[in-house]
Amino acid sequence: MPTKAYAAQNATSPVAPFSIERREPREKDVVIEISHCGVCHSDLHQVRNEWQNSIYPMVPGHEIVGKVTRVGAKVTKLAVGDTAGVGCLIDSCGECASCKAGLEQYCAGFVGTYNAYEKGTKDIAQGGYSERIVVDEAFALKVSPKLDLARVAPLLCAGITTYSPLRHWKVDKGQRVGVVGLGGLGHMGVKFARAFGAEVVVFTTSPSDALTLGAHEVVISKDTAAMTAQAGRFDDVLDTVSAPHDYNALVSLLKRDGALTLVGAPPTPAQIFGFGLIMQRRSVAGSLIGGIAETQEMLDFCAKHEIMSDVEVIPVTKVNESYERMLKGDVKYRFVIDIATLRA
Amino acid sequence: MPTKAYAAQNATSPVAPFSIERREPREKDVVIEISHCGVCHSDLHQVRNEWQNSIYPMVPGHEIVGKVTRVGAKVTKLAVGDTAGVGCLIDSCGECASCKAGLEQYCAGFVGTYNAYEKGTKDIAQGGYSERIVVDEAFALKVSPKLDLARVAPLLCAGITTYSPLRHWKVDKGQRVGVVGLGGLGHMGVKFARAFGAEVVVFTTSPSDALTLGAHEVVISKDTAAMTAQAGRFDDVLDTVSAPHDYNALVSLLKRDGALTLVGAPPTPAQIFGFGLIMQRRSVAGSLIGGIAETQEMLDFCAKHEIMSDVEVIPVTKVNESYERMLKGDVKYRFVIDIATLRA
Repeated sequence: MPTKAYAAQNATSPVAPFSIERREPREKDVVIEISHCGVCHSDLHQVRNEWQNSIYPMVPGHEIVGKVTRVGAKVTKLAVGDTAGVGCLIDSCGECASCKAGLEQYCAGFVGTYNAYEKGTKDIAQGGYSERIVVDEAFALKVSPKLDLARVAPLLCAGITTYSPLRHWKVDKGQRVGVVGLGGLGHMGVKFARAFGAEVVVFTTSPSDALTLGAHEVVISKDTAAMTAQAGRFDDVLDTVSAPHDYNALVSLLKRDGALTLVGAPPTPAQIFGFGLIMQRRSVAGSLIGGIAETQEMLDFCAKHEIMSDVEVIPVTKVNESYERMLKGDVKYRFVIDIATLRA
Repeated sequence: MPTKAYAAQNATSPVAPFSIERREPREKDVVIEISHCGVCHSDLHQVRNEWQNSIYPMVPGHEIVGKVTRVGAKVTKLAVGDTAGVGCLIDSCGECASCKAGLEQYCAGFVGTYNAYEKGTKDIAQGGYSERIVVDEAFALKVSPKLDLARVAPLLCAGITTYSPLRHWKVDKGQRVGVVGLGGLGHMGVKFARAFGAEVVVFTTSPSDALTLGAHEVVISKDTAAMTAQAGRFDDVLDTVSAPHDYNALVSLLKRDGALTLVGAPPTPAQIFGFGLIMQRRSVAGSLIGGIAETQEMLDFCAKHEIMSDVEVIPVTKVNESYERMLKGDVKYRFVIDIATLRA
């Protein structure tokens, strides 16, 4: 199926119109006509080969929602007319301990939605800046048609990336949780931590509207006195910042047995004093998106509690401009491409 | 009670004969005539004020064993003639969440066995390089008289420091556990991990007799190919090294959800790439000694399984020399002072 898309041809080219071929659906495949695709910071990193592993031509996009228009003969999870989503994964080995535990994101053989090769081939997997996607139903998610799909799209990456660690570390009522950074990830972290019943404090470099997103308190992380006043008061801190920053100040926020969980990875190593970990048995951990089962759980939770991303919808022609604005933090809080503008 | 001791008078003086006064036992106190006291690396740090918080005169020593010779009127846990021990703690606030959880080592108000002030006073707490100690029974441990007391003494710090994190992270049969460094702490980590049923691999900078201590395998941590061959194979890694070293190589050893636990804290920050944590939801954690209840559990476990430290017993006159040899790693694996040589 010839499919209109936007692609990067190399590390310095803008993302521009391109045509790709989608496969005819196999017996377990679903065809999703894409309505919206979120713009993730990792799209920018990969388009520009900032992680030195880019495969071109590259159609970015892994925050995908749309309508199922065709299904293979053995598909049972979705039907034509259903609303569906695709996140960061389209395949995994299916056999390792992580796959068997429903944690496909930690499978050494997982296949990303783009900037990857389809399993066992040299066919490049192409992402959501396109009219449609064809994917095995095992990696497609059911989405409630009641929600605003533009605002659902970012849940497939920004949403699950923050939902999963908050669940893993058992954030619950009565806990005090910090969220560091208020971008695409951070603003979802605030919404989830609040929905789980925690008292939520946002740590950010500049004043923000975190309170309107559900935070109980905002602390300017450069304000040493304000940071000191928060020391030892947090069950968990979720760090969404991918620029280098002071990790020890964040570790010091934790109570005994608290964890600072990184979901953003700066290119330089974090400098962490062992003493700060030892004295209260604290941890610094990492977390990567979420498995398919947990992503479905998250989408169902969002449907039930009407949790969605705050977005700015753009036509596909503005995607390069959106990258520049994202670099300046000039978005509240996620750009989402209206894929209808690609079909037009 | 006038009590012979060995003390440091300032950061540059050797540890030398000194006389201290021990209090008459209060109603909950026990008097322990010390038979042996281990020499911990932290004794050296504190004698030389390397942590910039030393209080002089300082009688070091927090790996203390001996016989109970007097008890206060309300003592119930110990009786005259019992074998007893004292570790790194002699008091805590008793009221905070950590104290209530039996984790007195994380109480902000805990009182160390030496280099500390007795609670609410300016009386300096003095440690185990002395004939006797007087301590509240709540901070005294019961020791099996069947064991070689010289070899029990190091359990009170080196033992519990490694036992506690291995228990906290639930090391068990079928797991593969790494122990980094083979000194006073590391050699106990090997013994405990083995006793808990794990497959134990020692990571060390030089060939050693780790196998005779119970390790299944030894890896020279400077051997990049050998390290790579171990990548992703460990449930937990216990890092006992307090000199700066490569933490990312150790993180890479861990399976999904594995923890690298630091019990040694270099003076410089650990440089840790977030990416290594994120990709397999790994953690870097810290752990500090253990609470009183867990220390008793450890001593009982050691009595049952005949686990003791490997030691070199020295007369108190050789303590300064033992510090120099410890700095060169010239000890298998813990110096223990025979306190009879202090009485003579």
